[in-house]
Amino acid sequence: MSNNNMMKNAVGRLVPDQINGEKVIPFKGVGKHVPEGRKYAPPIPTCADYPDDGNKLVSNLKEALVKAGLKDGMTISTHHHFRNGDLIANQVFDTAKELGVKNLRWFPSASFPCHEHLIQYLEDGTINRIEGSMNGPLGRFTSEGNMKGVGVLRSHGGRYQAVQDGEVHIDIAVIAAPAADAFGNANGVHGDAACGLLGFALADSQYADKVIMATDNLVPFPCIPWQIHGNYVDYTVKVDKIGISEKIVSGTTRITKSPDRLLIAEMTAKFCDKAGIVKDGFSFQAGAGGTSLAIGNFLADIMRNKGIKARFLRGGSNKYPVQMLEEGLVDYILDGQTFDLEGVRSMRDNPNHVNTSPFTSYNYHGKGNFASMVDVVFLGATEVDVNFNANVVTHSDGYLLHGIGGWQNCLFSKCTILPLPLFRDRIPVIKDEVTTICGPGELIDVIVTERGIAINPRRTDLIEKVKDSGLPLTTIEELKTEAEQICGVPAKPKIGDKVIAAIKWVDGTVIDVVRNIIKE
Amino acid sequence: MSNNNMMKNAVGRLVPDQINGEKVIPFKGVGKHVPEGRKYAPPIPTCADYPDDGNKLVSNLKEALVKAGLKDGMTISTHHHFRNGDLIANQVFDTAKELGVKNLRWFPSASFPCHEHLIQYLEDGTINRIEGSMNGPLGRFTSEGNMKGVGVLRSHGGRYQAVQDGEVHIDIAVIAAPAADAFGNANGVHGDAACGLLGFALADSQYADKVIMATDNLVPFPCIPWQIHGNYVDYTVKVDKIGISEKIVSGTTRITKSPDRLLIAEMTAKFCDKAGIVKDGFSFQAGAGGTSLAIGNFLADIMRNKGIKARFLRGGSNKYPVQMLEEGLVDYILDGQTFDLEGVRSMRDNPNHVNTSPFTSYNYHGKGNFASMVDVVFLGATEVDVNFNANVVTHSDGYLLHGIGGWQNCLFSKCTILPLPLFRDRIPVIKDEVTTICGPGELIDVIVTERGIAINPRRTDLIEKVKDSGLPLTTIEELKTEAEQICGVPAKPKIGDKVIAAIKWVDGTVIDVVRNIIKE
Repeated sequence: MSNNNMMKNAVGRLVPDQINGEKVIPFKGVGKHVPEGRKYAPPIPTCADYPDDGNKLVSNLKEALVKAGLKDGMTISTHHHFRNGDLIANQVFDTAKELGVKNLRWFPSASFPCHEHLIQYLEDGTINRIEGSMNGPLGRFTSEGNMKGVGVLRSHGGRYQAVQDGEVHIDIAVIAAPAADAFGNANGVHGDAACGLLGFALADSQYADKVIMATDNLVPFPCIPWQIHGNYVDYTVKVDKIGISEKIVSGTTRITKSPDRLLIAEMTAKFCDKAGIVKDGFSFQAGAGGTSLAIGNFLADIMRNKGIKARFLRGGSNKYPVQMLEEGLVDYILDGQTFDLEGVRSMRDNPNHVNTSPFTSYNYHGKGNFASMVDVVFLGATEVDVNFNANVVTHSDGYLLHGIGGWQNCLFSKCTILPLPLFRDRIPVIKDEVTTICGPGELIDVIVTERGIAINPRRTDLIEKVKDSGLPLTTIEELKTEAEQICGVPAKPKIGDKVIAAIKWVDGTVIDVVRNIIKE
Repeated sequence: MSNNNMMKNAVGRLVPDQINGEKVIPFKGVGKHVPEGRKYAPPIPTCADYPDDGNKLVSNLKEALVKAGLKDGMTISTHHHFRNGDLIANQVFDTAKELGVKNLRWFPSASFPCHEHLIQYLEDGTINRIEGSMNGPLGRFTSEGNMKGVGVLRSHGGRYQAVQDGEVHIDIAVIAAPAADAFGNANGVHGDAACGLLGFALADSQYADKVIMATDNLVPFPCIPWQIHGNYVDYTVKVDKIGISEKIVSGTTRITKSPDRLLIAEMTAKFCDKAGIVKDGFSFQAGAGGTSLAIGNFLADIMRNKGIKARFLRGGSNKYPVQMLEEGLVDYILDGQTFDLEGVRSMRDNPNHVNTSPFTSYNYHGKGNFASMVDVVFLGATEVDVNFNANVVTHSDGYLLHGIGGWQNCLFSKCTILPLPLFRDRIPVIKDEVTTICGPGELIDVIVTERGIAINPRRTDLIEKVKDSGLPLTTIEELKTEAEQICGVPAKPKIGDKVIAAIKWVDGTVIDVVRNIIKE
């Protein structure tokens, strides 16, 4: 990075003017960056180049990659709808290695611990870098300065935006599907590897030069529903096993049993009620974590008591939202990802459980998206600072261990609440400065901890509504002081000068960078 | 057209080198034209320019058109899913007239007699020309040389192709929907004007600069299903009445009672059986005309007798395909247009009755489409020549009275059959030369008439299969001779030199032109 000039962006972070040889636009503030130009325009195909009978099957993944023209320096995309049960991404790069192809950019919608297998290819130059989340082992490898290129992390919406806008040109997309026909129509609801939906691969299908559809469940045309259109697909491949089902979706989803977390969840739900958010026709989004699930349950209780129902619930779904849908507490689930078998079943069978995509829900370079229409969203964070800026990718030890997911996109909801424990492993969550800024404080409205609720001073409307509610209101500074009194102020990690990853904002600008860790 | 040079295309027709000031590519033969360049790239929008709460409602259509920047010379699109019950297209141009806007290009997916109202605007210069079907009164007006610009007719697939490829840049798309939310999500299955689906508007939503969604049935977000994505919509408008329901879909669909037509239908079904097409898992497409419906019924009988079922049926649907679906004679209806209330009901309630679009079914500049995968299709024609070239837009009197619809696209099926009466109103259907070539003979396989079946000599495989079937096989020359013996050879119409419309092939090349009629 020595040739780069550093620029200070709108949240005060220094970012280089180039990353991976590409020009950086520093974060300018929410809604401030005006995109120029036009969407990416793929080459015009013609049916004359595709089989009349619609049969695009080739004999194996290697043949598909060769036919798709795999070569040095290309960008290859895969997707995380199989989560830690994915069997395709590793095979793609095994094949690249076998073919002697080098310097690839891997562009996954997210990576998981199962992709630790790829570290060897990051080391030997088969893969230059990952643009996508670097969870777990890949995050550790990257944090220690071992990846050749600089990682780029984007939100789910930011990934769609980057592909749509041509910031990331995908040469070959490899889409793994629980069910597909030979034409390439595919869905996530049928088959042994059923994962619910394939929305994370939508952008890739629309914009990649070549699209390979791989499945272990080849059905006769037409594969219904077609969550991905075969009209975008170049080659189809039948494999023996596309994913490990027990690692794709969970058979059991559990609500937290921790008294502290339950207290946080209950206070969060009460806050929503007192603030006037829980009313007939409202909407909310909760994740699949134990605390979020508990919040959903407390909200359901409030709704039953009031005799009201929600218009829609944004998922990540699992059995709890599904129960609410089936009980009639909510009209629709608009779902980006199913986390358990009940979620898959409901999406398959219930027309009111609707699959969404980063395009519909999160793309900031659209004519609106769903995220900003949600009344309240509950999100996690590793750290929050006294200005309500929050971090979701690095830990306080500086290690990059998580992806952004839909987190940045969800910040646009009408009320963003972070229900957080005041400290984790005796490390306070609230800081003077977070290690990495992933979301600017102006979009984060409320922090709910087991020791009190801090409302962003910008939200005078919320403060006014709950001031006489009896809720334990406090300030973020007081929460920080209280945590430090209990835990002490933790030592800062030893962080080096090398930029190992960039954090993109939803509009393609760079909101922060992550630097290498100096191992003790 | 005096400044144009004429070129002879691959079916021997003279076409000008320019139409409406744009360069013409003459038809080169099926699959011969190789598209260059890239798809049309719309400007990148940003959520910052759209309301956070998703409410894009403006007070009326006029305000929406003004906000969308309506001005001289623009291209305005509308759609024909309300068929002769459409109330929107006329209002759009009434508004343009009121605003004094001139020289518009109207780009409907089809026009209907209800659009006769627009002739005044074609006369006064509000509208320069129609690119789309010119049915009935508009066809007559155009044929008599009264339209300022040259009409351009495209198939449903060709319309998608033209928009996708940037041949036609739509400035403002006005989409009328039986149900929509304020964000612009919309469908055709709910509401007083329910028409089934909105697929004809898909390209417009994706590629138009500005998209206006008009509905008389505004539902709270989310409008489910969203056949059109609100993420593509700029403005939404609530109107009192969007369409006249009894003119949109029929309450009754009737099978022909004509003995001749029934004979043709029965022979067609028998031909399919003898040719080995009617087998387990086969597919077919039939229109909504009385003869086509009868063919479907005869096929259903054969299937019941054989104890087999079809994998899918391509619609245009109505109660007969719906009965087949519900009886279990077919797994899926892949439907581009619902013609009656039973079709609407089935599409709304039955997940195996799937809505399609010109993108999935017909776009020739895709990575394949559905049309070529259909085993057999039954199509109409106004005329066929002895080389099996066929006409579907003009009559033998030279008048341009029909659109192409999906007709050209369907020719790509594995077997294209034209079941036709040998003559209509004592005018023979088979000619030495058709008035207008809409489909090249190489794609038309079989002509079934009440006096015999002619198989295209290119299809030696079909000839071989049915040679001992006992079916009344003949040649197209014999059919022509027989008709002329009965009716005589009709006088040729008086056709002028002025090119009044161009007929595009599915790949954007020009397969023929239509010239003006000299009134006697």
